Amino acid sequence: MKQTKRSMLLGTAVATLLASNLVGASALPETAPAPANNPTTPAKVELGKQLFFDPRLSIDGTISCNSCHNVMSNGTDSRATSVGIDGQRGGRSAPTVWNAAFLSAQFWDGRAATLEDQSKGPPLNPIEMGMPSEEAIVERLSSIPGYVEQFNSVFKGKNAVSYDNMAKAIAAFERTLITRNSPYDRYVSGDKNALSQQAQRGKKVFEQSGCSTCHSGANFAGPTQPIGEGFYQKFPAIDSDYDKKYKLSDDKGRYEVTKNKDDMNKWRVSSLRNIALTAPYFHNGSVATLDEAVRVMAKTQLGMEMSDKDVADVVAFLNSLSGEFPEISMPRLPETVNNSLVGNMK
Amino acid sequence: MKQTKRSMLLGTAVATLLASNLVGASALPETAPAPANNPTTPAKVELGKQLFFDPRLSIDGTISCNSCHNVMSNGTDSRATSVGIDGQRGGRSAPTVWNAAFLSAQFWDGRAATLEDQSKGPPLNPIEMGMPSEEAIVERLSSIPGYVEQFNSVFKGKNAVSYDNMAKAIAAFERTLITRNSPYDRYVSGDKNALSQQAQRGKKVFEQSGCSTCHSGANFAGPTQPIGEGFYQKFPAIDSDYDKKYKLSDDKGRYEVTKNKDDMNKWRVSSLRNIALTAPYFHNGSVATLDEAVRVMAKTQLGMEMSDKDVADVVAFLNSLSGEFPEISMPRLPETVNNSLVGNMK
Repeated sequence: MKQTKRSMLLGTAVATLLASNLVGASALPETAPAPANNPTTPAKVELGKQLFFDPRLSIDGTISCNSCHNVMSNGTDSRATSVGIDGQRGGRSAPTVWNAAFLSAQFWDGRAATLEDQSKGPPLNPIEMGMPSEEAIVERLSSIPGYVEQFNSVFKGKNAVSYDNMAKAIAAFERTLITRNSPYDRYVSGDKNALSQQAQRGKKVFEQSGCSTCHSGANFAGPTQPIGEGFYQKFPAIDSDYDKKYKLSDDKGRYEVTKNKDDMNKWRVSSLRNIALTAPYFHNGSVATLDEAVRVMAKTQLGMEMSDKDVADVVAFLNSLSGEFPEISMPRLPETVNNSLVGNMK
Repeated sequence: MKQTKRSMLLGTAVATLLASNLVGASALPETAPAPANNPTTPAKVELGKQLFFDPRLSIDGTISCNSCHNVMSNGTDSRATSVGIDGQRGGRSAPTVWNAAFLSAQFWDGRAATLEDQSKGPPLNPIEMGMPSEEAIVERLSSIPGYVEQFNSVFKGKNAVSYDNMAKAIAAFERTLITRNSPYDRYVSGDKNALSQQAQRGKKVFEQSGCSTCHSGANFAGPTQPIGEGFYQKFPAIDSDYDKKYKLSDDKGRYEVTKNKDDMNKWRVSSLRNIALTAPYFHNGSVATLDEAVRVMAKTQLGMEMSDKDVADVVAFLNSLSGEFPEISMPRLPETVNNSLVGNMK
């Protein structure tokens, strides 16, 4: 049973990946590709940074994008699941915003094609930022003179404050969030001392045991796909005790988006960039440590009990995927004078 | 009755202030004074900045100092009262951290003498950051290698991670949060065009009607006092309908600290620096706009109905107290690798 499932999984994966690198053999690019209708410009990035850090995008002024995707840290909140307005808990773990620009589909279930689409979700989600409508957000942004001025300048219009343009600016900022020059990147660029002996052993285990079948490409998230076409795999693919222990199957994953039975428990393959920094792990954040996450993956996706030594080596390799975080200046949020937009919220 | 109360109030104030400037006639200093046992150094400021922005100082990793004292904005959360862990609401409005270094007593009721003392409060407050004990905070900080290294280096010790040193570092960072070069500062430095005609009229109203009796000094928060000795006034001092409308007397203020009847409804006189940016107003954040706050103050402290024109002029003057916010680089929060310190918090 386990063998059969594993063969099916690998069969599908190999067919998908035949023409692509099985191993993430390239360094992260310096810049992220942007859609033709949203070129990245410095002024747009600056506006997007302000919006990303502005808690006034939430109904009561307490939650910004950065609350759950902390750019000063690992791009997540380091929690199993996030906390939105009124202390409400979400159901899935916040994915990191670092290098998200290189993913071809956003959210755990790939329900947004682009960073632009993704950024439109949380502000309207009642348990995240809780704004009642796009119009309410546009109205709030339009009450802040510093935003009106920047929107009109960046998007060249007289009434350029819109939900679409907000999303474009945030996405432009997010496209600058790239962590390059990890030990792994230096290694594949020719510096053979950039990886420790243990990390090099871990790299071999990672490749030979099949991790790299799915975690391929420069972002270790699968082959490059057209924007909007995610690279999905079933998780857990193979029955094990971990399923019950960590409630891995409770959330139906992409099935909840498509209602297609083939998508049951399927998830976008996660990037492994900075994975050592983004505990806890998996869609429900149920696994606390990276070594346990490696054990779970080996069992549920590859049907193997990985030895403690191999786990330690793979963890050493995964640590080599932690990149350098660029220095960023703090945004200054444009003010409303003589009054507050969120002052009288309960 | 009103006249009597007013006279008593002014009598006290004049006695207190006799030897000091009745008008805030000087610009903000370039640097803030530091206690002898906590000199401000660049490495300490950098460590303090990281701590100030680190949500791991709260039990569940959701609240940092910056959550309620937003340095990217006005140094507050722009709310009537703040929101701590689990969506809990506090009872008083978060005072701005900008220029707090120039206050001789911290908190609305002056219960902390220094920024060091102040910063030790919120982490342990069950409705703010909710850490169970100083020991729990020290243990958490000690689990973060990047903090251990910095504490030992900054405080020159082998086991220098302590609650006291955490407070010292945060205070050192806060002493750099100064907004200089406001229109008012430029005006008193000789640039007579820095204030509009309306703001100059407002300045006269501010001085002649008695606002500057208490809001004196470079920080518009009263005379310079020894550290720990706050400058307190009763608020509201004179009966009016505003009291009931805005529940101004419900909170007993400094009385809650001292249990001394003379301190009933007394409050540390607030700085007016950046006051146009820090709505809503007063200890309970009950007043939404600056013009209404001016009306309330004129009535409750000076016993006068201020005309709409005078209110508008005073508001114009108060707007001239908004300074320039220095550019600050984002801190990079030191990581824990392969696990999270807050991942398994509910």
